[in-house]
Amino acid sequence: MEFLDKDFLLDSPTARRLYHEHAANMPIIDYHCHLSPREIAENRPFTSITQLWLGGDHYKWRAMRANGIDESLVTGEADDKAKFKAWAKTVPYTMRNPLYIWTHLELRRVFGIDTVLNEDTADEIYDTCNARLAQGDITPRRLMEIFNVECVCTTDDPVDSLEYHRMTAASGCKTKVIPAWRADKAHNFTDMKAWREYVGRLAEVSGCTITDYPSFIQSLRARHDFFAANGCVIADMGVSRLVAEPCDDAEADTLFGRALAGNDLDAPEKDKLATAIMLDLLRMNAEKDWAQQIHFGPLRNVNTRAAKTLGPDTGFDTIGDMRGAEALAGLLDCLDREGKLARTVLYNINPADNAWTAAMAGNFQDGSTPGKIQFGSAWWFNDHISGMREQLDVLSCQGLLSRFVGMLTDSRSFLSYPRHELFRRVLCSVIGADVERGLIPDSEMPRVESMIEDICHNNAKAYFRI
Amino acid sequence: MEFLDKDFLLDSPTARRLYHEHAANMPIIDYHCHLSPREIAENRPFTSITQLWLGGDHYKWRAMRANGIDESLVTGEADDKAKFKAWAKTVPYTMRNPLYIWTHLELRRVFGIDTVLNEDTADEIYDTCNARLAQGDITPRRLMEIFNVECVCTTDDPVDSLEYHRMTAASGCKTKVIPAWRADKAHNFTDMKAWREYVGRLAEVSGCTITDYPSFIQSLRARHDFFAANGCVIADMGVSRLVAEPCDDAEADTLFGRALAGNDLDAPEKDKLATAIMLDLLRMNAEKDWAQQIHFGPLRNVNTRAAKTLGPDTGFDTIGDMRGAEALAGLLDCLDREGKLARTVLYNINPADNAWTAAMAGNFQDGSTPGKIQFGSAWWFNDHISGMREQLDVLSCQGLLSRFVGMLTDSRSFLSYPRHELFRRVLCSVIGADVERGLIPDSEMPRVESMIEDICHNNAKAYFRI
Amino acid sequence: MEFLDKDFLLDSPTARRLYHEHAANMPIIDYHCHLSPREIAENRPFTSITQLWLGGDHYKWRAMRANGIDESLVTGEADDKAKFKAWAKTVPYTMRNPLYIWTHLELRRVFGIDTVLNEDTADEIYDTCNARLAQGDITPRRLMEIFNVECVCTTDDPVDSLEYHRMTAASGCKTKVIPAWRADKAHNFTDMKAWREYVGRLAEVSGCTITDYPSFIQSLRARHDFFAANGCVIADMGVSRLVAEPCDDAEADTLFGRALAGNDLDAPEKDKLATAIMLDLLRMNAEKDWAQQIHFGPLRNVNTRAAKTLGPDTGFDTIGDMRGAEALAGLLDCLDREGKLARTVLYNINPADNAWTAAMAGNFQDGSTPGKIQFGSAWWFNDHISGMREQLDVLSCQGLLSRFVGMLTDSRSFLSYPRHELFRRVLCSVIGADVERGLIPDSEMPRVESMIEDICHNNAKAYFRI
Repeated sequence: MEFLDKDFLLDSPTARRLYHEHAANMPIIDYHCHLSPREIAENRPFTSITQLWLGGDHYKWRAMRANGIDESLVTGEADDKAKFKAWAKTVPYTMRNPLYIWTHLELRRVFGIDTVLNEDTADEIYDTCNARLAQGDITPRRLMEIFNVECVCTTDDPVDSLEYHRMTAASGCKTKVIPAWRADKAHNFTDMKAWREYVGRLAEVSGCTITDYPSFIQSLRARHDFFAANGCVIADMGVSRLVAEPCDDAEADTLFGRALAGNDLDAPEKDKLATAIMLDLLRMNAEKDWAQQIHFGPLRNVNTRAAKTLGPDTGFDTIGDMRGAEALAGLLDCLDREGKLARTVLYNINPADNAWTAAMAGNFQDGSTPGKIQFGSAWWFNDHISGMREQLDVLSCQGLLSRFVGMLTDSRSFLSYPRHELFRRVLCSVIGADVERGLIPDSEMPRVESMIEDICHNNAKAYFRI
Repeated sequence: MEFLDKDFLLDSPTARRLYHEHAANMPIIDYHCHLSPREIAENRPFTSITQLWLGGDHYKWRAMRANGIDESLVTGEADDKAKFKAWAKTVPYTMRNPLYIWTHLELRRVFGIDTVLNEDTADEIYDTCNARLAQGDITPRRLMEIFNVECVCTTDDPVDSLEYHRMTAASGCKTKVIPAWRADKAHNFTDMKAWREYVGRLAEVSGCTITDYPSFIQSLRARHDFFAANGCVIADMGVSRLVAEPCDDAEADTLFGRALAGNDLDAPEKDKLATAIMLDLLRMNAEKDWAQQIHFGPLRNVNTRAAKTLGPDTGFDTIGDMRGAEALAGLLDCLDREGKLARTVLYNINPADNAWTAAMAGNFQDGSTPGKIQFGSAWWFNDHISGMREQLDVLSCQGLLSRFVGMLTDSRSFLSYPRHELFRRVLCSVIGADVERGLIPDSEMPRVESMIEDICHNNAKAYFRI
Repeated sequence: MEFLDKDFLLDSPTARRLYHEHAANMPIIDYHCHLSPREIAENRPFTSITQLWLGGDHYKWRAMRANGIDESLVTGEADDKAKFKAWAKTVPYTMRNPLYIWTHLELRRVFGIDTVLNEDTADEIYDTCNARLAQGDITPRRLMEIFNVECVCTTDDPVDSLEYHRMTAASGCKTKVIPAWRADKAHNFTDMKAWREYVGRLAEVSGCTITDYPSFIQSLRARHDFFAANGCVIADMGVSRLVAEPCDDAEADTLFGRALAGNDLDAPEKDKLATAIMLDLLRMNAEKDWAQQIHFGPLRNVNTRAAKTLGPDTGFDTIGDMRGAEALAGLLDCLDREGKLARTVLYNINPADNAWTAAMAGNFQDGSTPGKIQFGSAWWFNDHISGMREQLDVLSCQGLLSRFVGMLTDSRSFLSYPRHELFRRVLCSVIGADVERGLIPDSEMPRVESMIEDICHNNAKAYFRI
């Protein structure tokens, strides 16, 4: 088969039919990403393929470092062309890494370039891309249109003004762009000084005086209300380690007071206070009938040297190996008992946790909403063909694939939408194979076709109430 | 291929020949299940497909809840027909879940129904099944005959009278039905009050006065003897977390005394006392030359609301992520040193533990019995095509597949025997593929055919001495 | 396909071409093994297939024990022929275990025997092998020549005199044979008495007086220098459990002094002292610009009975399930901050740790050397077809497969080189499949061919600077 042929990954007649007739044309709902609301609001044309590709993509940076490329050409002072060529030189070494497919799909789908990127073709492709960008019409919103993106949910901090979201909403953007609430800094005690500064910022933005635990939660709730007023319907929570240490209101207040006053807390105390705050945040989501996502497991900034010189989100986060089943059960159970468990998507970063995470979802399905608790799509380090296949298989066996809300990009780049294409091809390949080996009846093809369309689009639309 | 075609999953000529000529006709030895001894003894005809399918099957209940079905239609007050239709409505959403295959195999193999179950066919299938059941000949024992079940081992508590086992034995049942010993309540300290009540019950049933640790063990031993006298040859042990905390007799006696007197024990004390009791139970098995099974890892009743309203075994157990390799090594080593390690089958609930569990078996093979320590078949949450394939692959690589005792149902339903069919198809597919890709010589086909028959039947028969 | 046909495992035209034209003929660099330097130096002809196959191969011993073979026929007093026949009887039961393939590849590649080994053919094969050996030309070095082995790195203790390495080097051996440094005994506190004896031996051999932590490290450094002078360029470190407990020089000195004086240390103290020693050892490697390997996770000697009667390395080590991501990050980060992180290959024994281990490598790539931090090949319990495929897939997705240093034998047997053949076939199968399903462009075949040759040979040669 030709490289990235129209039928690539579609290894059966059923897969091909399901993809081309049912999956390919569904609009994209990108319900979790890290795109810049400001860039969407300002909608400035991109002018450089280097900026588009290498401006913030830590996946590519990791690959370049692993290929022996000096940091000056990765995130450093080198010029656009030199950086692009360093990336081009690395590309042939990324064969079998998702970057290899992503890179060439992006060249094809956006720039119409079929040429394979390598050291020899780097100049030509650089020039062609930049010439295309120079036409001035490749903007964030234009890219969303090219990829038929119906809705995008960014990831926003409670202290964010959401001004860019309002700008975008007011501008008649064809793609619906809404904020998502992510209050991780409220319960991140890695750096107590940073946490206190964050509490201060929160007080300021919310107009509340934060003196104790109740007023802290009140200020978060004020922002939660504000986010709701600005169209937010999804919350997100990300933790390195799952904790569920019982902590009553009085203890939370004591610990909060001590922390706010400038004292350090010991590890068990941090876990208690974090549990209290996380539960209160999760309760708010249920009260507003939002959906929520819980991302757990990555270790952050494990390379101190890089953290100091380059800062966070530059390619030095990694997969952790915490134990978390009991803690996650504890959190969900606590909320369920109170009738305050919102629709929840669970994402584990370590694929060794796939099975228990998928099974966990099943314990808190309460019959109120199809697929109320979701085993989320293959995330970050698992966002590749085999990772997606594994996630689909585990979900299929432990729950209901039919009710899956499907793919998201989790990306910082406006070029990442081909990840949806890749997911849809994998999905159709998996389902097609089951039909062809007699595990799904031909007579049920209408249901199968609906399932494909549901997973690609309809389920997410219904689940997130977008 | 047609849905559930006679050759489904048999993806090579060798696989087809091995299955049809060697696997398909072997009798079933179902050496671990949760069937009701009373139902077998009484052997009453089933009268309702709803009762048969939805009366106690928490797999289906979980799927229905995940599909947004209200609890009233799952385990609640709704009538048989409404419940059946709620299940029928869910079935199309279970594609790729083992329930989808199980459901249709059961309809085919027992009721001769080839129609696919969904909302549209629900009425017809409901009526056909119930009309068939109304003929009055579909009883527990008849189902065992239909599926060529040679032997069934139920799971019984030490305090059980085994009266139904004696009734069945006396009645000339064609299938051999024997009890298996499972004394988990003796070392389960989750609820100390329940534990003390259990000790009281044990004293009563065994006719011993339990005043201290030795008399407690003595009363268990009395019941162990009683089970042996009633044909038991297999013990079972199930734990959420593996522990092996050294605890000498004196300490066990002290802890036992305190616990019996109504005191709580702290976590390390519970682990010590549990270790002592488990080791004593495992020693008894060696002394009687029984085989034993150790099931580890599931977290039980993680949903408090459901535990209160529905009780245990209703679909709220889940896969845990404990660490256990050192503890399991500790338990087995302790017994091995004393020459008291019985033939043992190890079952992990978390598939991430497959490799270390399979390797662990190899450390305690002592040359006395082929396959003395077994890596058990894919269990519960892993009982699906990919789970079985993984178990077979890991076992093949870490040990001797040829010596594997094979499949069991672990089921509460008399309709679950097609799980053996599914396992046998997967097994033949796996072996067939290796023959066809040159990893197993054609000249060894007699050995391959014997291996298939051994794994399907002969190994279990020899291993469990049934 | 015929059993072990010339194209076995090569399931596509591309795979076949890549293997036969590019992989098969690359020389072998066996950069990590446990061959005996003395046997290489003395180069005596082998005289018995039993000695060659069963003299020290705990893989086979485990299989025989699992097959119910008495220890007398495994490692005991039985004669060569009886042991061979016990193994031959076991072989048919090892189908799907890597031993089955290894055994027959070794018979074919060394002895030209195509007959399948089983009880019936045992006598004939025994006689044929021993007749061939009786010709007196099958020596360690001849075996290396047969398999086109360019370089072998043994595993040596700091107290080793390396005399056999010097003998081999002086003798004009066609295969380059170099020592590798493995100082595990310096930080193994399982048996404090054994550790103290080791310190004594180290003092003696290094000619240093060891009175405190600095003189202890100094004596290790003296041996490190000595190893370097004898051609060593690779260090190795093996631990059951990863630890990274901060321990400054003063604390290390205190703990070391207490331990040396005959006191026991508690568990946290052992972890601290071990961390200090390991970091100092790893720093030495960076200072000499060696490459280093870290093997982590196996539990050793878990069967006490066997440890007492048979000693270590007799088949009673197993896969552990420790948590280690944070500790490994801690160790690597500490070294990276100091600019003392050598090129490092990471090997996990538990395949459930594949993903986080592969991702961890990416956090410490610094652009100085392509593939500076490597996710090592499928090791020991994972050295089989599916283990290799998984390692290749995880590495591909988390890093750069193109930069992989490839396969090693990790073996104690001179017959194990077909493990490289097996690896190369798997590699070509994996890459071939991607070409054929449109994930790698045909136009890039020169790069693909180079990648194959690089992974089979060139990468290791460049990385280890051999």
